[in-house]
Amino acid sequence: MAWRYLSVVAAVVRAVSALWPLPTQLSTGTTALILASDFDIDISTITNPPEDLLNAISRTKGYIQTDQLEALVVDRGASYAQSLQNASSLSSLVLSFDSGFNGEPTSISEEAADDIENRVEGYSLTVPEDGSAATIKANSTLGLFRGLTTFGQLWYDLSNTTYTVEAPITITDSPVYPYRGFMLDTARNYFPVSDILRTLDAMSWVKMTTFHWHMVDSQSFPLEVPEFPELSAKGAYGSSLVYSTDDVQNIISYAAARGIDVLPEIDTPGHTAVIAQAYPEHVACPGATPWATYANEPPAGQLRFANADTTNFTTSLISSISSQFPGKYFSTGGDELNTECYAIDDSTQADLNATGKTLEQALDTFTQSVHSVLENSGKTPVVWEEMVLDFNLTLSNNTIVMVWISSADAAAVADKGFRLVQAPSDYFYLDCGAGGWVGANPSGNSWCDPFKTWQYAYSFDPIANMTDAQAKLVIGGEHLLWTEQSHASNLDPIVWPRAAASAELFWSGPGGDISEALPRLHDIAFRMTQRGVGAIALQPLWCALRPGVCDLTA
Amino acid sequence: MAWRYLSVVAAVVRAVSALWPLPTQLSTGTTALILASDFDIDISTITNPPEDLLNAISRTKGYIQTDQLEALVVDRGASYAQSLQNASSLSSLVLSFDSGFNGEPTSISEEAADDIENRVEGYSLTVPEDGSAATIKANSTLGLFRGLTTFGQLWYDLSNTTYTVEAPITITDSPVYPYRGFMLDTARNYFPVSDILRTLDAMSWVKMTTFHWHMVDSQSFPLEVPEFPELSAKGAYGSSLVYSTDDVQNIISYAAARGIDVLPEIDTPGHTAVIAQAYPEHVACPGATPWATYANEPPAGQLRFANADTTNFTTSLISSISSQFPGKYFSTGGDELNTECYAIDDSTQADLNATGKTLEQALDTFTQSVHSVLENSGKTPVVWEEMVLDFNLTLSNNTIVMVWISSADAAAVADKGFRLVQAPSDYFYLDCGAGGWVGANPSGNSWCDPFKTWQYAYSFDPIANMTDAQAKLVIGGEHLLWTEQSHASNLDPIVWPRAAASAELFWSGPGGDISEALPRLHDIAFRMTQRGVGAIALQPLWCALRPGVCDLTA
Repeated sequence: MAWRYLSVVAAVVRAVSALWPLPTQLSTGTTALILASDFDIDISTITNPPEDLLNAISRTKGYIQTDQLEALVVDRGASYAQSLQNASSLSSLVLSFDSGFNGEPTSISEEAADDIENRVEGYSLTVPEDGSAATIKANSTLGLFRGLTTFGQLWYDLSNTTYTVEAPITITDSPVYPYRGFMLDTARNYFPVSDILRTLDAMSWVKMTTFHWHMVDSQSFPLEVPEFPELSAKGAYGSSLVYSTDDVQNIISYAAARGIDVLPEIDTPGHTAVIAQAYPEHVACPGATPWATYANEPPAGQLRFANADTTNFTTSLISSISSQFPGKYFSTGGDELNTECYAIDDSTQADLNATGKTLEQALDTFTQSVHSVLENSGKTPVVWEEMVLDFNLTLSNNTIVMVWISSADAAAVADKGFRLVQAPSDYFYLDCGAGGWVGANPSGNSWCDPFKTWQYAYSFDPIANMTDAQAKLVIGGEHLLWTEQSHASNLDPIVWPRAAASAELFWSGPGGDISEALPRLHDIAFRMTQRGVGAIALQPLWCALRPGVCDLTA
Repeated sequence: MAWRYLSVVAAVVRAVSALWPLPTQLSTGTTALILASDFDIDISTITNPPEDLLNAISRTKGYIQTDQLEALVVDRGASYAQSLQNASSLSSLVLSFDSGFNGEPTSISEEAADDIENRVEGYSLTVPEDGSAATIKANSTLGLFRGLTTFGQLWYDLSNTTYTVEAPITITDSPVYPYRGFMLDTARNYFPVSDILRTLDAMSWVKMTTFHWHMVDSQSFPLEVPEFPELSAKGAYGSSLVYSTDDVQNIISYAAARGIDVLPEIDTPGHTAVIAQAYPEHVACPGATPWATYANEPPAGQLRFANADTTNFTTSLISSISSQFPGKYFSTGGDELNTECYAIDDSTQADLNATGKTLEQALDTFTQSVHSVLENSGKTPVVWEEMVLDFNLTLSNNTIVMVWISSADAAAVADKGFRLVQAPSDYFYLDCGAGGWVGANPSGNSWCDPFKTWQYAYSFDPIANMTDAQAKLVIGGEHLLWTEQSHASNLDPIVWPRAAASAELFWSGPGGDISEALPRLHDIAFRMTQRGVGAIALQPLWCALRPGVCDLTA
């Protein structure tokens, strides 16, 4: 690692190298190189290149042309003018598979939908200093795509000259963790499809793998389900505020072409009050008040999981929705189950009496029914942590658990032998710190105060207090946006560039230094802005142009 | 006040009335009324109407046509369809001056630049239920404009029918406090002119009077000063990141036409490190490190106020800049003066020795010189609170003081007999709570944590702990945005609708009920969004459609 360390130090001094996430191995020089006006990306060595790879190549060329990002140095690169005049020019980037690669290439989309541990994302990249062809090599189409993404971050603009001053560049790169995600809640408030697509683009720029889509919740059901049309007809916020099956396919294919798998979530049995709009017979305590007794937020209402008809309804619903998604993972949720809701529900009490089951036993039956539908169609269930920490349920060993309540719970989940995703509220919840949204509460702050800074998220240790065996169960992590106080207007500034912190943490590995990372995070934030994603300013521009000078003790 | 209270209760029940700020007197009925397709605004009674009033009328008609805001009720107004079919239609809104009004009308712009206590903003508005002409009457052009703003908030859309279901409407309205402002810092990060203009529009929609423009600071000098061109040439973040004199005139006239006075601020003698780029001889301790010893944030650097040449330079600079602004107020700042900076500045120490003055005496001389330039040109100086609380300076009794460090300081300022603006960080700082921006500080939170919610701001008491005589010195208040972590991408969502809380507090008076206010604040936020200002969601839409149901104890 000494080599990597040295290159990082050099990057800080020059404040130019600005890849995000940081490659595993990176070597840069000090030679200027400009991009030729006829620069092109050559894939002639690849037989039958997949269409989504061709599109990714087009996008990469587009970004390089339109980014026009000035270097984040005090003179914005003006002092490079002389060396750029004498620089070699790069005309070609050659993409090819590693020599060991055999057979017809699969598409980025197919590879993005593969088992998460099977995805091959590594690549190597070279940019010689003499203008001879740059190269990206990989053993997968997804790997070539990751390399293209890195290549797109190498270039700056000075008076319409596209350049780097760090040739030659040599990169060998692959991720430390396979799952690097972002969760969006589209139920508290609705987001137009265009916002989701833009978010997927930004996710792909920082090499994320998974769009965890919390599609519906107690407040609204914006998802069209062909077999259950009344759910969105009665449960969406409006007829235009629905993700149609076409929208869903559009989102899935857009994501897949960018190396991103969509992990759909239908949260059950809690967080389902909205189902009562169409199917009141399946929902206990709908709208019960005071809501705080029966739910973590209004409105109360949960599926009658002790009931056989409700269980059948739920398995049909999950089956219908999951069949729309090509990915191998599906979340059935399972957070914040409120037992008071069932205590006042005569129907549930009657069902429990009739079957002689406890609430926990009934939940076990329900969960096994729902999960067996998924497993029978080759999918892996995903659940929130309560399903393994609060209840004694029979879950498949294959189940993936999302840790959210606290990072302190991760070791306990691992201790039960489940693979887990790190999604802890104390590090990765993007909504924290913006004040309470519940009404009539003048001094209310958010339940998960304070605001989770990128620096704090970046300092997260995903295997804290775990044995080596437990640590192996951590497959990655994600930032999350619950949207009680967000809609299209503030999506980008809440998410970016903060969510890039976990993207790097789980690609490059934990333990990164925030002082080294900050200049690179500025860079990707400005690059995002150039590409139409409204990332915020992390500091005064004065600081962004002077790495380290605005540090606490500088 | 009983009448007002009753109408407010009715508004909550129906969740339709949604004026912001709440008028002093408001009476609404329950009759549906639609806007005729040939609806027009009639000013035939006004001789020689000012052009900015004609433009305001055009804008109002435009908003009414394009807002297309659905009522914030569960069915989004669908149940009104029947009554709208049978409703009378309104063809005309007649604007006229009160019978006592004499002479040629002045323009909105002229009235906006008048002494703040002289501005006449009151108006009365009627909307009969039978379709006969609506009226706005006022004793000033600014009053007519405020009435137009209110009229533009009365209307909802259902299938392209523009309607109210609350006719007849009778409003008599005028503000409690004359100063209702918003401060923007354009020095830590730059904001394009278009962002400022959009902000001025939003400010006018909530009847603000003052755009407090913190134009320059230690990090950048984005203001073109004809007599001192090097300041922006060397001190701006880039040649395109400068407010030209044309830009400034554009901002001033755009604001004035919307009833908004621009209060320019050139912060002195602290917060001036950037001046060293062009005039190093006038700046003590430029870039001194560790910065935390010499400034509240990097970079350090302050005007050598003990020096006669620097004093002359500063008076010329302030004179040059203030002459660009037609308003009667100019802020010379005065916050966060760091004495350590002068302790290490040999030049300042030599000046003090030569004149035999203490630092405080020198500051007094400097401040009197700078302020006399303003007062000689008919302007009133504005200063931050330290200038009266931390130093014994000879300030004109006319000086206005901005309270910012803490709301607890307001009574002390009033005790010294100065008029004051309530701008306390503990209530009105929009940047608080987003984490620390200083580098190398992984667990750093913002110095003014927590996030200042609209609810908390709304609960502010502007005359806490004051005698009646002191309370009379409070001329109003403002929300403020310091932009260490903001630029164009997140301007709107940080500011709106939160800043509307102080706009109402200082128009309608303190003591408002947040449960009554919330539905109206939702409404103005959605109306802002319809008009292109990216206000955030305050709650899940589910709650916005059901006033009170998401209250803490509901």
